[in-house]
Amino acid sequence: MDDIIFGKNAVMEALIAGDREINKIIISKNIHSDSKLNKIKELAKSNGIVFQFAAKEKFLPYAEFNHQGIIAQISPVKYLDLDDFLEKPHHEASLVILDGVEDSHNLGAIIRTCVCAGVSGIIIPSRRNVQVNATVEKTSAGAINHIPIIKVNSLVNAVQKLKNSDWWVVATDASAKDNYYDINYNDMNFAIIMGAEHAGVSKSLLKLADFTVKIPMLKDFNSLNVSNALSAIIFETVRQKLSKKI
Amino acid sequence: MDDIIFGKNAVMEALIAGDREINKIIISKNIHSDSKLNKIKELAKSNGIVFQFAAKEKFLPYAEFNHQGIIAQISPVKYLDLDDFLEKPHHEASLVILDGVEDSHNLGAIIRTCVCAGVSGIIIPSRRNVQVNATVEKTSAGAINHIPIIKVNSLVNAVQKLKNSDWWVVATDASAKDNYYDINYNDMNFAIIMGAEHAGVSKSLLKLADFTVKIPMLKDFNSLNVSNALSAIIFETVRQKLSKKI
Repeated sequence: MDDIIFGKNAVMEALIAGDREINKIIISKNIHSDSKLNKIKELAKSNGIVFQFAAKEKFLPYAEFNHQGIIAQISPVKYLDLDDFLEKPHHEASLVILDGVEDSHNLGAIIRTCVCAGVSGIIIPSRRNVQVNATVEKTSAGAINHIPIIKVNSLVNAVQKLKNSDWWVVATDASAKDNYYDINYNDMNFAIIMGAEHAGVSKSLLKLADFTVKIPMLKDFNSLNVSNALSAIIFETVRQKLSKKI
Repeated sequence: MDDIIFGKNAVMEALIAGDREINKIIISKNIHSDSKLNKIKELAKSNGIVFQFAAKEKFLPYAEFNHQGIIAQISPVKYLDLDDFLEKPHHEASLVILDGVEDSHNLGAIIRTCVCAGVSGIIIPSRRNVQVNATVEKTSAGAINHIPIIKVNSLVNAVQKLKNSDWWVVATDASAKDNYYDINYNDMNFAIIMGAEHAGVSKSLLKLADFTVKIPMLKDFNSLNVSNALSAIIFETVRQKLSKKI
């Protein structure tokens, strides 16, 4: 429970101090609004921190703590701002963008794969995607300390920013015409968008992408785990990079 | 608990009937030998079923069942015999051999990847590797029904048999000279050996392999999840296969 902050005062203090990274604030639907709660919502909004209202059952695991119907989930790492990332020079760099990956173990495995493959950063949205939590940190096997995680409020805006900064954007889509290895990933900065296991990449992002690619399936069974799908693609980019150097 | 059989009589009946696939029989160190127990051990031995002795703490999760200090873990699928697999003709087929993969989620993800990549079968050893259990079945997302799982008592013997049947054997090893994409996987039947995440592939298997290959790491961080490592390699073989056809 060292990644949860309980109760109005503690959550408000964390927001004011600003030294701990808050993934999300969860507020019970059953608590009454008061000045402290209003202040918390106001601070969260101005800091771009997601807060959501939940039924009291959501608080059952924390029954032994004095949570007063409000908790803040804390990230074990500091997230990086996309603007700060883009300010630095990048040369033949790569990014992975996650659009709706909900499983902590998958995010942990993805972080490991990205570090091994020399990816420069991972972009996650602040909503509808798992955040970095204690399980992610553990399953990343230490990799979390070797790669920046960039959190954004809007993936559409993030992809637009990347394109404006001359990054090429590749989205994965099961119905794409090109296979992932038909693209030449050398001599450019590129970002690969991976979607949720069932829904895939959002339509709004597919529209923005410069390329859409699929992983060809040799059997009529299209259900690759997202971290395994990413691994196939990202190590193809490594193969291309290393083959070019020879 | 629908994949556990409890008690001497039930375990013995399952062994005699032979219609359910037993992964392993676990016997409490605290129970006394008697004729039934001897019969169980004898039947297990003659059917090549692993049995092991465990401290009574191992039985705590089953306290509500009348286990009498003996349980049998049941597989949700029937395993295939390697000889039966090799009897059929194979042309440019592939196998994945797991040497010490202990995590159920990893095996589930590996099964999904193998089905998507058209692998013909997965070989697991009866000891020191996770068996197919309810968690594996669930995380395979249905893939378990689309690929044979071949269980063998000795991986060394299995690899020898494959080599005698003109299969080529590729082992993964972090200190290998060749990268996995330096091999031409076309025009042959091949088997890829994946090792435990920390220990890697056993020395006895590395010696037998026709090729050893590594996945090149672009960062000094060599800790890929085994299902992600396999995915990179197996989809390279798919790429080669499909590129050849063009």
